Amino acid sequence: MGYRAPVDQIRFILDHVVDFRRVAGLKAFADATPDTVEAILTEAGRLTTEVMAPLNRASDLNPTRLENGVIRSTPGFAEAFRAIADGGWVGLAANPEYGGSGLPQTLNVAVGEMMSGACLSLQLNPLLTQGQIEALEHHASDEIRALYLPRLNSGEWSGTMNLTEPQAGSDVGALRTRAENAGDGSYRITGQKIFITWGDSDLSGNVCHLVLARLPDAPQGTRGISLFIVPKLLPDDQGNPGVANSLKVVSIEHKLGIHGSPTCVMSFDGATGWLVGQENKGMAAMFTMMNNARLGVGMQGVGVAEAALQQAVDYAVDRVQTGPIIDHADVRRMLAEARAEIFAARAIGLACAVAIDLARGGDDPEAAARAAFLTPIAKAYGTDVGSRVADIGIQVQGGMGYVEETGAAQFLRDVRITRIYEGTNGIQAMDLIGRKLSDDGEAALRLLDEIGEGAKAAQSDLPELANTVWDAAESMREAVQAMLADDAADRAAGGTPFLNAFAGVLGAHYHLRAAMHGGAAEKALARVFAARILPLHSAYLGAARAGAADLFALDAAALRG
Amino acid sequence: MGYRAPVDQIRFILDHVVDFRRVAGLKAFADATPDTVEAILTEAGRLTTEVMAPLNRASDLNPTRLENGVIRSTPGFAEAFRAIADGGWVGLAANPEYGGSGLPQTLNVAVGEMMSGACLSLQLNPLLTQGQIEALEHHASDEIRALYLPRLNSGEWSGTMNLTEPQAGSDVGALRTRAENAGDGSYRITGQKIFITWGDSDLSGNVCHLVLARLPDAPQGTRGISLFIVPKLLPDDQGNPGVANSLKVVSIEHKLGIHGSPTCVMSFDGATGWLVGQENKGMAAMFTMMNNARLGVGMQGVGVAEAALQQAVDYAVDRVQTGPIIDHADVRRMLAEARAEIFAARAIGLACAVAIDLARGGDDPEAAARAAFLTPIAKAYGTDVGSRVADIGIQVQGGMGYVEETGAAQFLRDVRITRIYEGTNGIQAMDLIGRKLSDDGEAALRLLDEIGEGAKAAQSDLPELANTVWDAAESMREAVQAMLADDAADRAAGGTPFLNAFAGVLGAHYHLRAAMHGGAAEKALARVFAARILPLHSAYLGAARAGAADLFALDAAALRG
Repeated sequence: MGYRAPVDQIRFILDHVVDFRRVAGLKAFADATPDTVEAILTEAGRLTTEVMAPLNRASDLNPTRLENGVIRSTPGFAEAFRAIADGGWVGLAANPEYGGSGLPQTLNVAVGEMMSGACLSLQLNPLLTQGQIEALEHHASDEIRALYLPRLNSGEWSGTMNLTEPQAGSDVGALRTRAENAGDGSYRITGQKIFITWGDSDLSGNVCHLVLARLPDAPQGTRGISLFIVPKLLPDDQGNPGVANSLKVVSIEHKLGIHGSPTCVMSFDGATGWLVGQENKGMAAMFTMMNNARLGVGMQGVGVAEAALQQAVDYAVDRVQTGPIIDHADVRRMLAEARAEIFAARAIGLACAVAIDLARGGDDPEAAARAAFLTPIAKAYGTDVGSRVADIGIQVQGGMGYVEETGAAQFLRDVRITRIYEGTNGIQAMDLIGRKLSDDGEAALRLLDEIGEGAKAAQSDLPELANTVWDAAESMREAVQAMLADDAADRAAGGTPFLNAFAGVLGAHYHLRAAMHGGAAEKALARVFAARILPLHSAYLGAARAGAADLFALDAAALRG
Repeated sequence: MGYRAPVDQIRFILDHVVDFRRVAGLKAFADATPDTVEAILTEAGRLTTEVMAPLNRASDLNPTRLENGVIRSTPGFAEAFRAIADGGWVGLAANPEYGGSGLPQTLNVAVGEMMSGACLSLQLNPLLTQGQIEALEHHASDEIRALYLPRLNSGEWSGTMNLTEPQAGSDVGALRTRAENAGDGSYRITGQKIFITWGDSDLSGNVCHLVLARLPDAPQGTRGISLFIVPKLLPDDQGNPGVANSLKVVSIEHKLGIHGSPTCVMSFDGATGWLVGQENKGMAAMFTMMNNARLGVGMQGVGVAEAALQQAVDYAVDRVQTGPIIDHADVRRMLAEARAEIFAARAIGLACAVAIDLARGGDDPEAAARAAFLTPIAKAYGTDVGSRVADIGIQVQGGMGYVEETGAAQFLRDVRITRIYEGTNGIQAMDLIGRKLSDDGEAALRLLDEIGEGAKAAQSDLPELANTVWDAAESMREAVQAMLADDAADRAAGGTPFLNAFAGVLGAHYHLRAAMHGGAAEKALARVFAARILPLHSAYLGAARAGAADLFALDAAALRG
């Protein structure tokens, strides 16, 4: 049947699980009427199902290439990108002052999930542009905003993030790209960047690079990094793309997946750029951009998982081996666990988006902290689920899943990057147990309070499920306290299982809400999550408390064997 | 550094963990003196490290191709295969009466792991030949044995398994390939087979197909299947390859991985074959072959995991991001968990091999049941660990893991098939909770008794670890009893988590033995397993008891979303 955007499932979560009505009730989002929300989700469903999804196999079979220094994207991408741009999807949540639609981030995140499920390689292009828009809105001068934002919002131009260098991956502070003040308000940027997604594009009229670089005599490490906007074509007096800047794509990577999305080695050779924000304060601006991009990446995982599961279910219905294989208990188990995890990851991501909107447009003082706390969980769990479900998709299809023609393998290959970029999932875990618990666990504990209240409220209707959620929240509360008491090394050694455990509690909580408001299917799915996924929770809590000593008792020789 | 065969680790397990001395002490294996064992493992280590491993990237970059109906294997494969054949490795465990070396299967399994870690695509060729040798030894007539076995053992000829047809994958009974008695002692085979690994080869002088087919008026299903040996070139009076048989490779698959191993669509058009075993008893012969191949596939998972982990450790030592990343707690955690799981999977596989040898060469009446019980666990857990560790290998290397040039992605792509072929891991679970518990759980409970005794014996030296293992074995015992009391649907719905739980208990048991006999590193590794992997055990037991009702409350529409 092919990918069908999960519009109804998203709407159910918005309506019944993550309190989207609180967002829609804010003055800042007065435009987000029920009719508008309905129209946006329906239209995004149509665009992704009918226009983008048919290109997904092509993105793998006819990769975007570099020919004589020029990017030639997968046939069909140009038309589909035009449909995305002309539909106003790039600037959906952006500031209306500069051509955005000013709608809630929640809707944008939901649309991003659908686009990712339809065609991840293509979706990456607008996703990165959105990150750039956000960074410029918050940190750029009026002139830069007036020049760039309308063109980015309209999809006329696109945006990239240039962070990584060969010696500076997760350790951004180690970067060496130089910037020199040209004295005319501009800077000259020189250096090499790697792993630059859509570092060039034939989909838009210009490509704008946000580049992290170091000024002369800047402090070492992350406190000496500045952010610049460096367009491929220098805007002329009318703001139209003019002469070429001194930058180029040196090569593109041969990757496991997302073959439609070119991953570029970029060379800047005295390229002209303009400062965004203040000198040496580039990391703060970059983090604005990355934090929301992290949620977007989490939803990429959810989107690909959705597409992979739909395909697997279709196969399991059609494939007969002593009856349709969907009636084999172990196949049904795999599909049901996948569906239960997708629901959980989607709800976590949308709850995070709701918190972002409440922080942006409302007067809820706790919303920003909640958004910050949920972001690494949404990123890591969403992308973990992406890999797990894509893997299940292959397994359900057996030998047919292993041959490339079905596309099941492509889902696995494509989604694998989402656990790495925008901060590896390990870095998300370190963020969670470090910065995001640095409020003495207040945001975490408040969230657990709310989960406990939800469990209490469900007690009479769904006692078993409610008790399970209550117990999980209580043990999570103890784990938070214990984590806060730990020394840094032990805490770090428990970061990933701690994140996994928290995701499990959140997932169970949202499943319980769905079960309270839904029908028999939602209740059964919630029980599947509670009986088959949530039990991992206590295993994770055990691992979270296991400490660092035994890990560091194993040196490289012992680990290599 | 590249792959280095884990000879020392294997020897440690043979000496201290799985009681290989009992095998070496049997009269049937009198040749397996300590010096011989040492020489064999060392020489296999050299062959795999120096000859096979350097070909692994080539197997991906220069796949084996089909040119005008002829297979052209990856450059270098021919020479390496010759080294394997001339070294006597194909017939290592085969009957000396027909040119085999008659050594324990345990050694063969250990060598198979090393070969898989070095180059999985190439290792598949001798692995399948070994399966054919085993089937012919047990079921073929004297004439067939005399003709084929010496040539297969020497690697002069190679062997394949032809089971799958488009409509008959896991449901072998649905196959349609026909066989007709030609009246001269031979049969005419007609039909199409798919997913035939190394269905043709330019590495050996002849390719012998074991083909499942149906005689006229044969009973339906698996009770009407017969097994035939169908050589590519018909042997002449001297047993030399003569005229071409009526069979051919129609096409080869474009797969996610193992690009050096051609996966063929085979067409048999009245091809000449000879019956192996009795008419309509082909499934029994096939199971002989598959059971041992399943263990071999489990060890493929272990082998690839070993190679992937070695590479990841090397990267983590060299890669500096605020210090070598191996000193980052979450990286160390990933590597340590991978090492702990590899040890567990290897020990389970070698314990299974020891049981096979004790059954073959000894008078231990329980050994056959133990081997049968451990086989699906060794297959499923070994290959699960293969995928998990290859995935960790990518994650540790971040963006460099996602680009193909490092080879990390290849490990993931290659090993993914091992969870599917020779019976998917779901089918292994169904085998475990069905046939392998059909002795009222006797084999399972006896194994748990032994684990309990091991824990008791370790009580004074390593009380914490010993208690953990004891508790896990006790809860596993309860799960076995509960499983036996369940109805078929609930049991099936719990099969995979039951298998995972049993693997965890076994892994912890072998880790405890290693900790008792090893040094600080073995003790630390055992604690990592106990604290970070084994806790999943109780989660699995919960899932194993969750029943089928909720799964089947979710129909295809609910699962597709």
